[in-house]
Order: sequence, then C-alpha cells, then structure tokens
Amino acid sequence: MTTSPFRLDATAQLPHGFTCAATNCGLKREGYDLALFAADRVCTAAAVFTRNHFPGAPIVLGRERMAGGQLQAVVVNSKVSNVGTGDEGVRRARAMGAAAARELGVDEGLVLVASTGVIGVPLPIERIEAGLQGLSQRLQVDPLEGARGIMTTDTHPKAISGTVPTRAGGEARLCIVARGAGMIAPNMATMLAYVFTDAAISRDELDARLRRVADATFNMLSVDTDTSTSDMCAVLASGSAGEVDPALFEAALLELSTRMTEMLARDGEGATRLLRVRVSGGASIEDARAVARSLGESPLIKTMVHGGDPNVGRILMAVGKCIAVPMQPDRVNAWIGEHQVVVDGRRGAFDDAVVRQQLLGDEVEIRVELGLGQSEATAWGCDLSHGYVDENAAYYSS
Amino acid sequence: MTTSPFRLDATAQLPHGFTCAATNCGLKREGYDLALFAADRVCTAAAVFTRNHFPGAPIVLGRERMAGGQLQAVVVNSKVSNVGTGDEGVRRARAMGAAAARELGVDEGLVLVASTGVIGVPLPIERIEAGLQGLSQRLQVDPLEGARGIMTTDTHPKAISGTVPTRAGGEARLCIVARGAGMIAPNMATMLAYVFTDAAISRDELDARLRRVADATFNMLSVDTDTSTSDMCAVLASGSAGEVDPALFEAALLELSTRMTEMLARDGEGATRLLRVRVSGGASIEDARAVARSLGESPLIKTMVHGGDPNVGRILMAVGKCIAVPMQPDRVNAWIGEHQVVVDGRRGAFDDAVVRQQLLGDEVEIRVELGLGQSEATAWGCDLSHGYVDENAAYYSS
Repeated sequence: MTTSPFRLDATAQLPHGFTCAATNCGLKREGYDLALFAADRVCTAAAVFTRNHFPGAPIVLGRERMAGGQLQAVVVNSKVSNVGTGDEGVRRARAMGAAAARELGVDEGLVLVASTGVIGVPLPIERIEAGLQGLSQRLQVDPLEGARGIMTTDTHPKAISGTVPTRAGGEARLCIVARGAGMIAPNMATMLAYVFTDAAISRDELDARLRRVADATFNMLSVDTDTSTSDMCAVLASGSAGEVDPALFEAALLELSTRMTEMLARDGEGATRLLRVRVSGGASIEDARAVARSLGESPLIKTMVHGGDPNVGRILMAVGKCIAVPMQPDRVNAWIGEHQVVVDGRRGAFDDAVVRQQLLGDEVEIRVELGLGQSEATAWGCDLSHGYVDENAAYYSS
Repeated sequence: MTTSPFRLDATAQLPHGFTCAATNCGLKREGYDLALFAADRVCTAAAVFTRNHFPGAPIVLGRERMAGGQLQAVVVNSKVSNVGTGDEGVRRARAMGAAAARELGVDEGLVLVASTGVIGVPLPIERIEAGLQGLSQRLQVDPLEGARGIMTTDTHPKAISGTVPTRAGGEARLCIVARGAGMIAPNMATMLAYVFTDAAISRDELDARLRRVADATFNMLSVDTDTSTSDMCAVLASGSAGEVDPALFEAALLELSTRMTEMLARDGEGATRLLRVRVSGGASIEDARAVARSLGESPLIKTMVHGGDPNVGRILMAVGKCIAVPMQPDRVNAWIGEHQVVVDGRRGAFDDAVVRQQLLGDEVEIRVELGLGQSEATAWGCDLSHGYVDENAAYYSS
C-alpha cells in the first residue's frame, strides 16, 4: 500500500494565480454582502446547479455560460437571491456579471454570477455595480476573505485546501470556498461551493469528476430536505501548475469535498452536532444512498441525536421507510458509533448509558449494513434543535 | 343539484351492535393503555397497513388475518409496540388476540391486534392478558371511551360518525375511532384508525373503497415524513343496518376520513395550527399528490406557518424541488388563504400584513395551481415548533 499523494494544507490557501476580495455594498446593514474571485488567466471550468424547477436568474445565466466550458471570475452577493424575478432578473444577473468583468478587465462571458437571499425581490443592481467599482484593488490571496464575503448566517467562513503532485513532479493546489446551510434573512438553505485549482485538466475530465464527487459529497448533505433554488458548485482550473493525473485530482477533490461537506453539516442552522450516516451492503449505490439519506434527513433521527436519546427503534423505522429499496429485514445490522444496536433486524442488547454518550459527542456516526451487496454510501446532516425552528419562523424581511 | 345524503352526527356514536371498553393494565403508570372494540356478529372487513420494511408483529399477524376478509373485534395496547421482536413477538401478538377472543367468546381468527409504543421491547403479555379478563363486562356504546383507550400523547380522544341511507330506506352509520400523530413514550408517530359500520357491503367493495379513501386522506397526512412500523386503518362492516350503495358508502367514508385526518393533523406533536395544501392542475393524480406532499412536509413551509411569516419564496422552492414532476414554472400560481402570492411562477404583489394574518389562523391553507391538467390532491400537516423538538429529543424510556 502506498500512502495517498494528497496533502491537506494546515491553513487554507488559494492556488497560485487566484485572488479574492469582499465588501459591503449596502444590501446588508453590516458585514460583507458582495464577494469577487478572480484568476489571472482563463480557466477550464465545470459546474453543477440546483435541480429545483424554479432556479434563480444566476442559475439560468450560469447554465448558459458553462456551455463554453471556461470561466475566469466568480461574483457573489447575499441578501437578495434574484429568484422568481423573470426576464428582468436575468437581465440584472447579466449586468452584475458585466460589472465584475469591467472591474477585472476580463471577458463578460467568463464571469459566473451567484446570488442568495430572499426570493422574489428585485436585485438592487445599482448598489452591486457601485460596490464592485474599485474592488479589484483589494484582491488578495487569503481564501477566508472570499469565504467571509459569501457567508450569511454561517457561524464561520469556510475554506479548505490541499495539494497533489503534477505529472512533471511539481505540485498543484485545490482550494474549496463554500457557504452552507445557514439561513439567509432567513430564507432557504443555499449551498455555494467554488473549487479553485492551478492543476491542468481537460474540460471533459473536470466535468465528469466534479459530478461524481458532488454526487457523493455535497449532494448527500441535507439540513432539512429543502432544495434551494440557488445551489451551485463550480470548479475553475487555471492549469498554471501543469498537468495532473485525473484520478489523483478526483481523489483530492473527493477528500476536500468530503471535509467541506462535514464543515457545512456541522454548521447547519441550529446544529449542535454533526450526523454522519454510513450505509454498506447495498445492492446498488442508489439503494445505499437512499437509505443513508433517509436516516440523515429523518426528523426523528435528528431529534434523537439532538437529545442524545438511544431510541434505536427509529433506525429500523428510517431504514424501513425506504419502500422503494428492496430489503431483507433480518439481514440489517446497525451501529451507533462503535456500539451495535440492531442485530439481524432486531434491537440488540446494549448499554443505554454508553450509547447515550456516543450520541452526545460532537459527531454522531450511525452505520447500517444492509447485507444485500457491496455498494456503500455516506450521508451528512445535523441534529434538529430549537435553533432551527427559531431561525426559520422569524420574519423574512428582518 | 341534490344535497348529499350523508349526515354528520353532532356527537360521535358507534353503529348499532358495536361496543368498546378501555382499561389500564399496568403498561403505563396512569391512564388507559388497553382498548377493546367488539361487534355483535362477524363483520366483513378490510384493512391497509404500513409499508415500512420493519412492520410490527401485530402488522404481520393482521395481514395474515385479513386474508379471510372477516373480523369481529379489535384489541389495542399502547406503550410497547411489539416491533423488532421477531417470532416471539408474533407469538405474543397471537396470545393477545387469543385472550381478547376468549374474553369476548369469538373466534380467535376474527380479532385484529394492534400495539404502539417503544420498539424492540418484549410485549408484557401477562399484564395484557390479565387486563383483558372481565373487560367484556365494561363494554359500552360511547366511541370516545375506546378512543381514550388507544390514545398516547394525543391531547384529546378522536371519534367521528355520520349516517347514509340504506337501499331499503333505513339508515347505516359509519364511525371512525383513531389515534394520531402524537408521540409515544416518545417514539414514532403511529396512526391507528378503525372504521365501524352497520352497513352491508361486499368484501371487494369494502377493500377497494377503503384503499381509495385511505390514499386520499390518511396517506396524505404527514407530521414529520417518518413512516411508522405500526400504522393501520381497518374497517369492520356488520351489515345489520342493511345494504348501502357502495358509492354513497365511499362518499361518507371519504368525508369522515377527511375530517379525521384534519383532527389528526391539528393534534400533531407540537402543532399549533393545521396546514392544508391543495394542489390542482396536475397532469396526473400522482403529480398533484407529490407536490401537495412536498409542501405539507417541507420544514421551511412548516416553520413559515409556525412563525406566521409570509416568506412565499418557500412555496416556489417546495413546488420546484419535486424534480420528478414535469413542470412549466410560468404556469404555476399559488395562494395563501384567499390571497394570491405567486403569479405565473413569480412572486406576486401582496400585502404582507394581510397574508401574515392568514398564516396566524387556526388553519392555514396553501393552494397551488400547476396549470398542466385536471388532477387534484390535498395534503395535510401541521406547523413545526419547539414542541416537536422537545417531544422527540427526550429520553425514550421516560
């Protein structure tokens, strides 16, 4: 066995040639509400977008721009999502991209635009245009500054990076900057994730590997089952560090995306602990994912984890409610942490106090073995608390 | 237009020939934990059961008994659900039915058994057998007594009844006794509903019409998307009142089941208001139901209703996240109460204060028109509150 050539950076760093800046342009009363990310050259790019039937104007524009497979900048505002705003919304998203392009001196078609926040409100495009003026002079290399710029009610900015060897013996870096499942204003949980890399990789490889990794990581994250109209994950590869083995690139992207997914889950609204559900023994990857998601999203599992209550019958319930997944109940086994709680489809004997302690940890891992095949999946979520109710029951324009 | 021949009873009554009794047999510290329902003759019967892959022992036994299409009694305990208990659990469920049969002097195969409560704990069969002894002497005609006997954390007992004309010009009565989406012990929300009628109707008609009504009512109720391992809905038709037009019978059953579904939704754990979602214009009934359910189950819609917050973007989100339902976003319109809030797929202009008042009512109705066909569906739910978190985060054996 060889050790993985991927190396995690102790402190997140943008790859060479990437910079970012953030500012307040008057959408929010205080704190950053506008962020800009730029590369020093045209990048090969790929992106995945929300599948919601009511995508925001930036998603409509983003799909159009991704047809070219190239990007050089990303501009993001918070507070107003530019969703449900029709053709005028798309026009304003285009104007926002154009303003960023002018400021950076790049081609307008190379700017990816994102907005998160309240739905159905016109985008205050004049404030955004004014806010972008001069912002290129503040571009710098700390990814946390850009991460702060795309935050809403996340409790901390999120960036993570690491390196893989290039074919020529050098080193390429991947950095993910994301905002998570905090509520905006409050609105719906929207996930934005941007991957910046100086690795050289073809468009087709980049696209295929991003989709595969996103399916296994960001798409397995759920705070409340509600799918935002603004979700996106995009990768910009400048190529300046030279070519990398696509398999190594994918392994690094998977590792970083998994860690970022856990950071996002842990910071879900009202979350006090991370919930990780690992399912093995599925007849197919789709089956394993369906069961993992069912547990990760179940309000009764999430409240059990919140209360540290070893009510393991709920695991049987949440596995069993996947009625589209073929199952042999007496082959199902389950663990909370290290402790087996379901044995051959029945509640096992276990020490309540010990299992309760597992449930009260910073992370809770539930593992389910279906006994039907070799497929595995992991889902991520968080506990369900008063905090979730409070953040989402309050006045939307507050 | 003729007026409906269905008449709702002002006070719920059991049909002639049906009786019930309830007692405490020591499973719960206080209050009833055991209920018995009996008919004075063998009834034609039909039932629908949970689709969860881990059905409780009473469900396994119930499916077996329904093969015969006849029942004469129902026995129900709370506190211990007899789920995840294997062959021994089925043996105990059988013993519980046998004890009820002995007490009533009816055939053992004619007794439907139900248990709700904590999963994975052995059923205390001796206490139940002892509790049943002599209970037949307390049989009486008020359905609320039986309803009290099957309650757990429901805040009030639930029974409802009404009449339809028989073919011979007489009157047949239907009475539904149910327990709802309150938590046991706390455990998962389990719905038990029993329909008692003195109407004469064939097994096949009864079965088909129960399934159709259950699909449109009880199966469209969701407090938290979690499917119990013990849900059941059964109908016992004694025939003593004479034959009824099956279509009239179905209309009456639909009316009563709809009302009972609303009673159950309103009394969901932590619920402070009823949420009713009506979807029209679906290309198929399945599509309309999927969209109605998506809104009724969405945590962000439920917290919006809890907080009285007219954050109508969430309606677009919850409609749009039904990615398996074909949609034309610009044909979607939506209303909260009487007030249109989504116009042709975009947020409409409306008075926040007026809509907020609608959301703070005892009942909240959200209506969505998809603009694609003639199919309609209704889903029922409730708001999401601190109370839900509190009831479900506490110690399971409390």
